[in-house]
Amino acid sequence: MMIVMKPTASEADIQAVIDKIENVGSKAHSSRGEEVTVIGAIGHVEDEVHVAELGLEAYPGVDRVVPILKPYKLASKQFNHGKPSVLEIGGRRIGGEDFALIAGPCTVESRDQTLTTADAVAAAGAAMFRGGAYKPRTSPYAFQGLGQEGLRLLAEAKARTGLPIVTELMDTRDIEAVAEVADVVQIGARNMQNYTLLSEVGRSGLPVLIKRGLSSTLEELLMAAEYVLKEGNENVILCERGIRTFETAYRFTLDLTAIPVLKEMTHLPVVVDPSHAAGRRALVTPLSLAAAAAGADGIIVEVHPEPEEAICDGPQQLRADEFAAYAAQVERAAAVAGKVFTAAAAG
Amino acid sequence: MMIVMKPTASEADIQAVIDKIENVGSKAHSSRGEEVTVIGAIGHVEDEVHVAELGLEAYPGVDRVVPILKPYKLASKQFNHGKPSVLEIGGRRIGGEDFALIAGPCTVESRDQTLTTADAVAAAGAAMFRGGAYKPRTSPYAFQGLGQEGLRLLAEAKARTGLPIVTELMDTRDIEAVAEVADVVQIGARNMQNYTLLSEVGRSGLPVLIKRGLSSTLEELLMAAEYVLKEGNENVILCERGIRTFETAYRFTLDLTAIPVLKEMTHLPVVVDPSHAAGRRALVTPLSLAAAAAGADGIIVEVHPEPEEAICDGPQQLRADEFAAYAAQVERAAAVAGKVFTAAAAG
Amino acid sequence: MMIVMKPTASEADIQAVIDKIENVGSKAHSSRGEEVTVIGAIGHVEDEVHVAELGLEAYPGVDRVVPILKPYKLASKQFNHGKPSVLEIGGRRIGGEDFALIAGPCTVESRDQTLTTADAVAAAGAAMFRGGAYKPRTSPYAFQGLGQEGLRLLAEAKARTGLPIVTELMDTRDIEAVAEVADVVQIGARNMQNYTLLSEVGRSGLPVLIKRGLSSTLEELLMAAEYVLKEGNENVILCERGIRTFETAYRFTLDLTAIPVLKEMTHLPVVVDPSHAAGRRALVTPLSLAAAAAGADGIIVEVHPEPEEAICDGPQQLRADEFAAYAAQVERAAAVAGKVFTAAAAG
Amino acid sequence: MMIVMKPTASEADIQAVIDKIENVGSKAHSSRGEEVTVIGAIGHVEDEVHVAELGLEAYPGVDRVVPILKPYKLASKQFNHGKPSVLEIGGRRIGGEDFALIAGPCTVESRDQTLTTADAVAAAGAAMFRGGAYKPRTSPYAFQGLGQEGLRLLAEAKARTGLPIVTELMDTRDIEAVAEVADVVQIGARNMQNYTLLSEVGRSGLPVLIKRGLSSTLEELLMAAEYVLKEGNENVILCERGIRTFETAYRFTLDLTAIPVLKEMTHLPVVVDPSHAAGRRALVTPLSLAAAAAGADGIIVEVHPEPEEAICDGPQQLRADEFAAYAAQVERAAAVAGKVFTAAAAG
Repeated sequence: MMIVMKPTASEADIQAVIDKIENVGSKAHSSRGEEVTVIGAIGHVEDEVHVAELGLEAYPGVDRVVPILKPYKLASKQFNHGKPSVLEIGGRRIGGEDFALIAGPCTVESRDQTLTTADAVAAAGAAMFRGGAYKPRTSPYAFQGLGQEGLRLLAEAKARTGLPIVTELMDTRDIEAVAEVADVVQIGARNMQNYTLLSEVGRSGLPVLIKRGLSSTLEELLMAAEYVLKEGNENVILCERGIRTFETAYRFTLDLTAIPVLKEMTHLPVVVDPSHAAGRRALVTPLSLAAAAAGADGIIVEVHPEPEEAICDGPQQLRADEFAAYAAQVERAAAVAGKVFTAAAAG
Repeated sequence: MMIVMKPTASEADIQAVIDKIENVGSKAHSSRGEEVTVIGAIGHVEDEVHVAELGLEAYPGVDRVVPILKPYKLASKQFNHGKPSVLEIGGRRIGGEDFALIAGPCTVESRDQTLTTADAVAAAGAAMFRGGAYKPRTSPYAFQGLGQEGLRLLAEAKARTGLPIVTELMDTRDIEAVAEVADVVQIGARNMQNYTLLSEVGRSGLPVLIKRGLSSTLEELLMAAEYVLKEGNENVILCERGIRTFETAYRFTLDLTAIPVLKEMTHLPVVVDPSHAAGRRALVTPLSLAAAAAGADGIIVEVHPEPEEAICDGPQQLRADEFAAYAAQVERAAAVAGKVFTAAAAG
Repeated sequence: MMIVMKPTASEADIQAVIDKIENVGSKAHSSRGEEVTVIGAIGHVEDEVHVAELGLEAYPGVDRVVPILKPYKLASKQFNHGKPSVLEIGGRRIGGEDFALIAGPCTVESRDQTLTTADAVAAAGAAMFRGGAYKPRTSPYAFQGLGQEGLRLLAEAKARTGLPIVTELMDTRDIEAVAEVADVVQIGARNMQNYTLLSEVGRSGLPVLIKRGLSSTLEELLMAAEYVLKEGNENVILCERGIRTFETAYRFTLDLTAIPVLKEMTHLPVVVDPSHAAGRRALVTPLSLAAAAAGADGIIVEVHPEPEEAICDGPQQLRADEFAAYAAQVERAAAVAGKVFTAAAAG
Repeated sequence: MMIVMKPTASEADIQAVIDKIENVGSKAHSSRGEEVTVIGAIGHVEDEVHVAELGLEAYPGVDRVVPILKPYKLASKQFNHGKPSVLEIGGRRIGGEDFALIAGPCTVESRDQTLTTADAVAAAGAAMFRGGAYKPRTSPYAFQGLGQEGLRLLAEAKARTGLPIVTELMDTRDIEAVAEVADVVQIGARNMQNYTLLSEVGRSGLPVLIKRGLSSTLEELLMAAEYVLKEGNENVILCERGIRTFETAYRFTLDLTAIPVLKEMTHLPVVVDPSHAAGRRALVTPLSLAAAAAGADGIIVEVHPEPEEAICDGPQQLRADEFAAYAAQVERAAAVAGKVFTAAAAG
């Protein structure tokens, strides 16, 4: 922590800050410039937390407090000695050179829709199957998902295709039911800072895919991951799915800069969800190619046999019969970034 | 719903959209301009929901789909015949001409801190007492609140001062414990779209204060309220607490335009939390005066006997011994907007 | 400047940074924490500029570079010894305890419209008269202002009412014509970073009102002011007029937190434009009251005799015949913040 | 234009809106739903402009006014019959299947730096050479560019390599000097809404590259292009260079969704500037690959022989000796989107 004093700070102000820092057992060191004094307290992360909680920004003569150390530890690149983590989920790898294409319908609607889609994405080389049984909906009047029945259909798709299942958990009370089917538990963007839920999935030990909140910083995304990792669960995948900006010409702004930046910050795999960001099918392919070329470790994308008949988010779902062509193009883009489809490797 | 067709849309494209709309039982009417055709389907809200779920934006020849009706009903100004709702909570009113000053510490830390603050805010004319027992913290390594022990201290403060209690609920599993003490259940900004939690507090029947998410639109805030109202619980208070923007010179951007705009959209009372938005004590007074002058129905503000010793958010908490002067100034600002302190009325 | 090294930085990396800093004549001092090393170079602002231009963020082992000193000098609060500047313009004061209400039509349309409005705002206690002769319009097909003829009408309004004139300059080539009439030259939000224009109005010596760009930080606003101040022109007024955020329920988000924060950063007066932020008349009064209560030094607001007939921005202009009531209410709100209308003082 | 009335609008309110519309010569048609009435006025763009200027949003009973037609004409996809424009500049094509790599230093610093870089980028297959002679700088104390001397060095680079020159114009008074050297005049992000400048470069007839403002919508970018096109100048290139969002982990958020969305809206070529968005060299390659894979028509990127010694923006400039490898990788990514390097075609 660096405490930057105001030019008008008195000696007593400076000393008071130093005393406060030393009272909590940290070492303080002041650097006096010609205009301002800067007080440094740079020890361990623990010291940083203690000093942060002092609330020094409100002290007389203090201009601002600048954190020096990262607030996350287990998620940091350094924690894994600078190397990316490679997770193995149901025989598929994600991270490092392995690229995972995760595909399936927005929501599980029926047996036929689910199995048709699962067959199509399996045939095209997808690594995992996604589908929502519990759906967070902005409106209380909208379809809220099939729930338990949806989970049952996902289990059937998994038995049939061998694809691991990715599905969303919204309520701590559903965790056992979800854990019976899910190979990866998805935490949605709206729940990214639902710390109760994060701690619970952490304790479950199941692989977790955390979607970045609409206006969450990358640091906050890593702090959400830290809630899971802290429970001893190392299997965390991060997912960029679009952030909220001023632009209204499309739904959300897909933040592809997040890919290389996260790869500097953390060892965890990073996937991209182009479907929810774009909101329209015509944008999904270019955004998928961009994400793969930028070095994403995977893509999670929505596919439906008949998007026009979908119960929700039809306009953004790819057509199942066009999925193989899409997957082939994504594979080429991933290759530009030096990645190979894990499905091929696992096949 | 208005469906704007592209200039290049064919007759068949137009007819296909009309057919789709009529298939779900709505009426479609097309207006042909010289450049484009617009198809209208403007019946009830229910029709609007059905047409929205068709996903027409992905149909051939469709340029965009424009909602006409509001997606919220129970929260709308119209639902209350254009009049503001006035809630009565423990003998205090909020809404209409009644202004409620809600004050107390960020987090309940100890018996002494809690009771000292409660006495100070009661003496200065506060309408309710706030304090956190369960705290959502960005870092898993930070203090997470006293939990049950915190609730017990809040109950003691209530018994002593007669002030109704406002406290946060984070987990559906804690609802019974919180309901024993709380007069108003607070849903934090990070949980504004935790639909499970909203439905549960709706069913509890307790008054609910919903904080706007950091990047939630006013429409989304009203949809969150709708989740509570839909369970038959009419006692909802909305809270603006700062939104996330590009500015880095302070913590969040307090959106005071939200006050008059929400008052056009909804009958529900609107309060402002200047403490979390500002993050620094020096900003709390000017922002409080601004909120009151803009017509807010109340302010929820943090106060501490010794902010320098606070466990969390010390820098943003007002000093208990300066609170009376603050309250008097807020009362003058509220008067400019034609409001009176409810505490005086209830006294 | 503080240079935070990565945990993996080598001794050679650290030494290279120190050498670089010392090569440009600054002093470097390293603080070694248990996890990272921080190198400080905290001398004068000039040193900070030199070190900034080294681009150290791209050096091996460097995590990030944190500026310590403010990049503005003449605009800083410290430059005026911690006191606010009070400008005197045509006998009216702005800044300190003096509040200036600046009012007039969006654009000068006709002799009658201009003089009727000028009479109304003068009678109601406005301190200055505003009106646009040159208008920046998003569309090349929209009305672009009366130009020279508009300036002539403003001169007539000034002769008649004695009110100083505030009008916008868009092109360096018009500066002489504008300077003949204007008591304050307005730089619009879209031109806030038009450095050529800023330097020219700096050299003109005329008082300048700079509107904050739609997505400009407060620091950038002060850097724009610095361009004017650096030419020896001390008469700069800053204007908050709404920033662009994700919210779509209204036009722009009026950033009232900017008022107290700017007052900590700078000695320059700060006014607020509620008309452009809101875009609708019904929002102008509550936002004006909020701005005044938050401590603004003035308000610049649009008024028209018949807003329904206005050539541009009719919906956001106050009615001239309701202006006196509006002004009286603003005066009460300003009083809450300890301010008095300058017009009264100058009367 | 569609005018959505409030549920509480009276018959007289509805009739007043219809009368207003018909007074300006447009046709109005009302659709009465069960909850609200919508009045449509959908003729030509000209009608839309007239109706927009009525300011109907402020009329009694009006809820909101929804534009139906696009406010731009010459820039629209439809204007070019749905086909992309291919510009030819100094023998290089941009647009359609032709991808142009535009490279060079941030700022022209010296003869040696300029010519070394020009040689390197020419050898690696760049289509054009970029370099700044006039530099917009946030700080008045920073280096402002070599000006005329810079233009002379660019002319020398062009004579030597044959590469067309892209350079920025900031002031209408410099247009003749710039026009002598520039094959493409760049309008910087800060000047995107400097309408005087846009009209002047429109009249010059020179190809113009317009950078999107930091917080400009895509529609506003197209309106800026419309200012140039309206002067009869058809040679406009649009450039995405990062938008301002809440994220602070990197400099700007590169909006790659803008690429496919602009390609739906307009026939004009779209290039991407990854250097200014990223601000750091390590991010430039992944963002360039992403932009090319997303279907950009070109990339404009900064290159320097010795970035550590650069006068400005060193950290974001690619190294000249690594540029050939970079270009080869971008070429592969462009191929994924079906594009070929124009330099090869022109060679």
